[in-house]
Amino acid sequence: MSIVLGANQYGKAENRVVRIYRDGARHELRDVTVSTALRGDFAAAHLHGDQSKVLPTDTQKNTCYAFAKSHGLREIETYAITLGRHFVDTVAPVTGARIAVDEYAWDRVPVGGVGHDHTWTRRGSEVRTTVVTVDAERAHVVSGLKDLVLLKSTGSEFAGFLVDEYTTLQETHDRIMSTSLVANWTFVDDVDVNWDESWADVRRILLEQFAVVHSLALQQTLWEMGKAVLEAHPEVAEISMSAPNRHHFVVDLGPFGLENPNEVFYAADRPYGLIEATVTRED
Amino acid sequence: MSIVLGANQYGKAENRVVRIYRDGARHELRDVTVSTALRGDFAAAHLHGDQSKVLPTDTQKNTCYAFAKSHGLREIETYAITLGRHFVDTVAPVTGARIAVDEYAWDRVPVGGVGHDHTWTRRGSEVRTTVVTVDAERAHVVSGLKDLVLLKSTGSEFAGFLVDEYTTLQETHDRIMSTSLVANWTFVDDVDVNWDESWADVRRILLEQFAVVHSLALQQTLWEMGKAVLEAHPEVAEISMSAPNRHHFVVDLGPFGLENPNEVFYAADRPYGLIEATVTRED
Amino acid sequence: MSIVLGANQYGKAENRVVRIYRDGARHELRDVTVSTALRGDFAAAHLHGDQSKVLPTDTQKNTCYAFAKSHGLREIETYAITLGRHFVDTVAPVTGARIAVDEYAWDRVPVGGVGHDHTWTRRGSEVRTTVVTVDAERAHVVSGLKDLVLLKSTGSEFAGFLVDEYTTLQETHDRIMSTSLVANWTFVDDVDVNWDESWADVRRILLEQFAVVHSLALQQTLWEMGKAVLEAHPEVAEISMSAPNRHHFVVDLGPFGLENPNEVFYAADRPYGLIEATVTRED
Amino acid sequence: MSIVLGANQYGKAENRVVRIYRDGARHELRDVTVSTALRGDFAAAHLHGDQSKVLPTDTQKNTCYAFAKSHGLREIETYAITLGRHFVDTVAPVTGARIAVDEYAWDRVPVGGVGHDHTWTRRGSEVRTTVVTVDAERAHVVSGLKDLVLLKSTGSEFAGFLVDEYTTLQETHDRIMSTSLVANWTFVDDVDVNWDESWADVRRILLEQFAVVHSLALQQTLWEMGKAVLEAHPEVAEISMSAPNRHHFVVDLGPFGLENPNEVFYAADRPYGLIEATVTRED
Repeated sequence: MSIVLGANQYGKAENRVVRIYRDGARHELRDVTVSTALRGDFAAAHLHGDQSKVLPTDTQKNTCYAFAKSHGLREIETYAITLGRHFVDTVAPVTGARIAVDEYAWDRVPVGGVGHDHTWTRRGSEVRTTVVTVDAERAHVVSGLKDLVLLKSTGSEFAGFLVDEYTTLQETHDRIMSTSLVANWTFVDDVDVNWDESWADVRRILLEQFAVVHSLALQQTLWEMGKAVLEAHPEVAEISMSAPNRHHFVVDLGPFGLENPNEVFYAADRPYGLIEATVTRED
Repeated sequence: MSIVLGANQYGKAENRVVRIYRDGARHELRDVTVSTALRGDFAAAHLHGDQSKVLPTDTQKNTCYAFAKSHGLREIETYAITLGRHFVDTVAPVTGARIAVDEYAWDRVPVGGVGHDHTWTRRGSEVRTTVVTVDAERAHVVSGLKDLVLLKSTGSEFAGFLVDEYTTLQETHDRIMSTSLVANWTFVDDVDVNWDESWADVRRILLEQFAVVHSLALQQTLWEMGKAVLEAHPEVAEISMSAPNRHHFVVDLGPFGLENPNEVFYAADRPYGLIEATVTRED
Repeated sequence: MSIVLGANQYGKAENRVVRIYRDGARHELRDVTVSTALRGDFAAAHLHGDQSKVLPTDTQKNTCYAFAKSHGLREIETYAITLGRHFVDTVAPVTGARIAVDEYAWDRVPVGGVGHDHTWTRRGSEVRTTVVTVDAERAHVVSGLKDLVLLKSTGSEFAGFLVDEYTTLQETHDRIMSTSLVANWTFVDDVDVNWDESWADVRRILLEQFAVVHSLALQQTLWEMGKAVLEAHPEVAEISMSAPNRHHFVVDLGPFGLENPNEVFYAADRPYGLIEATVTRED
Repeated sequence: MSIVLGANQYGKAENRVVRIYRDGARHELRDVTVSTALRGDFAAAHLHGDQSKVLPTDTQKNTCYAFAKSHGLREIETYAITLGRHFVDTVAPVTGARIAVDEYAWDRVPVGGVGHDHTWTRRGSEVRTTVVTVDAERAHVVSGLKDLVLLKSTGSEFAGFLVDEYTTLQETHDRIMSTSLVANWTFVDDVDVNWDESWADVRRILLEQFAVVHSLALQQTLWEMGKAVLEAHPEVAEISMSAPNRHHFVVDLGPFGLENPNEVFYAADRPYGLIEATVTRED
């Protein structure tokens, strides 16, 4: 039995690219973080330190910036596909590329009620994401979002659960439910997608379902969110969600002669529940 | 020369308090982090470990939660003043209290174009702040904000600066200017303030001035922002701002045969410029 | 084509467990963060909100703390196997469990040159890790470490690399090489391992190889590190490493009339190279 | 009453400087983050955008790197004094400078039991700090440390405290006491200090006192720590400490039929107690 090189990849992580469109006085702004990773036959680099097939990570960084100019940076999925395709098609040793993009949203600063031409404020912690994997034949696109913080102050229960000798939790029929949602969805093959429109509508559905579903558990809410996305978006093949249950505990104010009918809560940091589920399609 | 106890204080930091108002189907939400610190004659606790004058930090925490119910939690300045006054007036050894509150904003999730009754999403990274210092006579209030991330894609210059032997920077007449603003403002004595309205309008002015001032340096922008606040708000005695200059560097695309007329930028993390200024009133 | 539930799991993440052994005056300390995730037939919880097969995440938390007492908390691999086995064997709907443990090291505070009986200081940012996956038949153990920050001030080159139209990097035969290593290694089946001894020696080898290998690229260093581990440890089946290349750039001091023969560096935050490789065995 | 410019300063924050000494095969390493701030007559820059008296923050950064070569970087206090003196003495509009330095410690990687010549691992989260303020006459030096995480598993009580209507805490005569210490100490005027030796011995005393004092409260421990420093170090004028009380709660294992005599703890993140005290000298 011998020792061999297994899976490997390398690239430049977290390139901070800001692209301004200055066509006239009213500018447009794109603010992204891009990470590249290349796959191929890099055995010589590992085994012998021979870099002759290794395109430097510095070059990958340069390419991210150059493409933001030469190919533009509008929809992050298109930008990522273009980058990945470039590496696979033009760099001989490269057989696959993984391009991940995080996008930060900005709002125009209102001046006298009107959004300013060239001044913005960061919208929030929420991040739009894509991960594109390109090989010789195709690009596999995953669109998503992360750090979307949500809270319901009622409409959430947790009862009828399994009880064992380590169970002390009490049932509740009215609690705060809060999460910082991560969602990623893949697309069916050979589909033509308007990435911006599709993304915005998937996000709208996720938010609306979180709001309107009367929740018997976070699992059920995630299922309903995912199902609604797949029902409305035939271009989406599958959606995966990871939802920390950010616990809000009702504070016992009894010792101070006060009632607390779900009005005052302690928001805990750790530990947190973590619910993960995929909703998919089946023939 | 003897060794003595100097300045000291103690309290409970970062109590996470969430307050829901459930008067009818349409809930209201307040989400804050509160830190308390008490001052007084605590020499015995330090010198002899005698805790008889020490109100536990756990008690201070309990009080934060109890007051969110009994006194309510609407305007953070009012909440902080009430807490501080309580400690000074009812706990004998306490002669001063410092109450700091950070507030996180939430937006109602839109469902069919209408904000939902009991579901929200966190608005962003920006935090509204107050620090209230209470003693036997009065409460000193500082209102503020932090982590307000701003960016101008033009309308900013930096030229004509002092040059010494370590200066290599080139002048620029068009650059990105970006900051993550921290601002704190104090109030004139014995004034009656509508905290929410005052805060919102100070914030509006800061944003508008950042947008409309043609900037010859971040110092000048801060001065104009502060001056506009003081001109419009007689209740504000003084405003201090701390503004990191989040550098965005124009990427040299020349080696790749591309021009880059301020379109593609590298957003740097560190180091950053840090500009701090106070604008005040003088007789 | 119908919409169905795909892969799913749930649990309690980041339980902070501290275990003190007080057998005599000289205490022992274990400080860990434990995350549990359970797998099984939870379709009813998702589709109908029926929690009757769902052991609460709160119960999983309780179990982590109870087992730290009843089963002890010494080697994190043993603790994780015991927890996972418990969930799979005693909770009927559970068919699989994933237990992840991070351990933080502490050193005794020296008093007069001798380690104190019951006072410690945190050793550093480095974390020892394990991820154990348990099903009906067996436990699959991955041991590892993360946040091990390393730096070589010489003995590292990068030259002879592939050049394309976006390449501007210059070759170097002497540079700083620095990383924050993540390494995870799996074990061959049915092996009896002394977890503490094995972990300490794998770590020793990783550090020594990083030091003594003259590096032609980070890829080559990782390969040599992994190969040395597999050669010395027949119980290790495979090792994967993820190594950010924390760039240290030589500062050009020429404009100030100073030479800089690799003495003064700017340590960059982002972007960073990211090199990932697995070293494994083959029949 | 007019609106005027108040206190202001500007500089370059968080310059990451790494200095290697390569005198022979056995290298030395210094790893610091430096922040500069300049004070003086900068009214024209604020009021009129006139930069003619403003030395760019970019120049300040260059100076930090250049001085690491030309003046060296050994003791951070000396490095900071030299930088501050330079700005005040050679840049005409500058009347004061504040230089803050954080230093990260590294240990040599052991190879065959011997520390390697040019390979290190980061020691831990603890940071050595200095803040030097220079004006026309003198340099005011504050040395310190931060993020020094400590824990005692016994030898700590909290009892006999003040009780009011919001007090629910139970007394304890045996608890875990843990903190992440921040300490800063100033020096008496016109003293000649061996900065490295002084710093190491102050740190030793702080650690030892934390270990050996039987604590009736964190306040008492801080007092004893500070007093011991001042007794042993006549060059130290005053020491201030800020100590979060990182709560470790005994977990109630009674529901599971288990005793828990201070063996299993839940380590909480927030809220935390925060104890701040200064120990000083008096004529």
